[in-house]
Amino acid sequence: MSHPVDPIKAACVQQAYPPVASHYKRIASGIAQAVGTGAQIVVLPELHGKPYFCQTMRTDLFEWAESVPGPTTGFLSEQAARYGIVVIGSVFESRAEGIFHNTAVVLGPDGTLLGIYRKMHIPEDPGYHEKFYFTPGDGDFEPVETPFGSLGVLVCWDQWFPEAARLMALKGARVLVYPTAIGWDPQDDNEERRRQYEAWRIIQRAHAVANGMHILCCNRTGQETATDGSGCIDFWGGSFICGPQGELLAQCDYDAGVISADLSWSRCQDVRRLWPFFRDRRIDAYADLKLRWRE
Amino acid sequence: MSHPVDPIKAACVQQAYPPVASHYKRIASGIAQAVGTGAQIVVLPELHGKPYFCQTMRTDLFEWAESVPGPTTGFLSEQAARYGIVVIGSVFESRAEGIFHNTAVVLGPDGTLLGIYRKMHIPEDPGYHEKFYFTPGDGDFEPVETPFGSLGVLVCWDQWFPEAARLMALKGARVLVYPTAIGWDPQDDNEERRRQYEAWRIIQRAHAVANGMHILCCNRTGQETATDGSGCIDFWGGSFICGPQGELLAQCDYDAGVISADLSWSRCQDVRRLWPFFRDRRIDAYADLKLRWRE
Repeated sequence: MSHPVDPIKAACVQQAYPPVASHYKRIASGIAQAVGTGAQIVVLPELHGKPYFCQTMRTDLFEWAESVPGPTTGFLSEQAARYGIVVIGSVFESRAEGIFHNTAVVLGPDGTLLGIYRKMHIPEDPGYHEKFYFTPGDGDFEPVETPFGSLGVLVCWDQWFPEAARLMALKGARVLVYPTAIGWDPQDDNEERRRQYEAWRIIQRAHAVANGMHILCCNRTGQETATDGSGCIDFWGGSFICGPQGELLAQCDYDAGVISADLSWSRCQDVRRLWPFFRDRRIDAYADLKLRWRE
Repeated sequence: MSHPVDPIKAACVQQAYPPVASHYKRIASGIAQAVGTGAQIVVLPELHGKPYFCQTMRTDLFEWAESVPGPTTGFLSEQAARYGIVVIGSVFESRAEGIFHNTAVVLGPDGTLLGIYRKMHIPEDPGYHEKFYFTPGDGDFEPVETPFGSLGVLVCWDQWFPEAARLMALKGARVLVYPTAIGWDPQDDNEERRRQYEAWRIIQRAHAVANGMHILCCNRTGQETATDGSGCIDFWGGSFICGPQGELLAQCDYDAGVISADLSWSRCQDVRRLWPFFRDRRIDAYADLKLRWRE
């Protein structure tokens, strides 16, 4: 089960998106920088086209949604075709009046929209009113085929659910990709910040371990005040790329920046042969994973 | 959903088991040391009654198996009753001629055998010929009720499977417990050792994060030569206790020793309310977790 292109080089473009008008320009610059590292696959943070608008519930902000394909997809398509790369972006999608999604889009080296993924697990907590804005995805956990292999694209809150990672792996994904928008509540003390940040890294690195595959996680960074001024999120950055034993290959700290790394499928093969978890899964005993709770 | 006893103090007794005759004495001493820290729950490493015999395949070693209840269970029962604690031990169980299990036993404060768990995921790789010795468990992933709460007892190789941890959590376990016997191949270089060790910690800490609960992981330590001298495992120790955000509360390095920590259920409650993963699991979309592979 080899891959025709191995290794592949992938990059994450970690950026800040305060409420200014030049996001596309900033993204184009980040993609160019990533391509400069030799990247064939470039990942952007969640909802990179706009300030993170979910801090408050405002019906007028549904105006910010767009169709897929649409303006953002078109822009990313141009970028992908310009460099002959795969770009994974994130769009506030208007699917129908009253149905909006948090949608990842995958553009191919000729600019084609290769596939989309509509976020399946939707959070709702102070500062993240995503259940207000986003209808949960009604598709499957299905990877997107690209010339560089099959990508298991998931979005942010999905990263806390081992089930999502496992399903993408079982469907043949070569890499897991997480466009992300997560940060601290500025009220949190340093100990809580550290615990949250480490928990977030640990659980994603564990998906790499459990499934013997690479992870690309690309987060926003920087402070963003709510559109009505009612609050603030300090997006923690920390984008990273890890290998099939969870080993960190590249990582950002808080500052905006581009990271890239070679993802070697032959290394994943070695690890899966050393630690053959897929061989031993007790699929006869997993039926209760479909339970909400024991009773 | 409070617990009558909160917090509880739990301990792991990390020990070496080279082929000497005094294992029971050594275990008794470790339990006494754990009780000295105030522990109400004490965990021992996997198959602590014997040298790790699975390095080679020898039919005569089935003689080492014993019934449950039997000698080791009886010994652990006395220890539990003596101190009024819960003890989690591990037995090479003879269930029937031709059916042997790798079985965890849970003894209550009055010495009662509260429950058993027969290891569900069985490894088989160089140095760990467990598929030769152990029939996979045919029970469910069912926690054991104790006066200190419900314990999700799993064994070693189970620790690599997020499904096992999730199922124990869904069945109401308060804590996950992993008696373990894992080590390095002395041929491995330092980089590979570090990656394996970190992967092993990461995936278990991630079970804590995914399920908002504490983990007790108790490993063997020290070099053990195969019973026929054909090889050697360097058990890496590293037993640890972590909290519901994966934060390390206590940990061993390589040397034998006892660690203990308070496990606060009210802290798990706080974390599960902050990060309500159980609320958002897409149980409508998890059916394919029962697949071996996509095709």
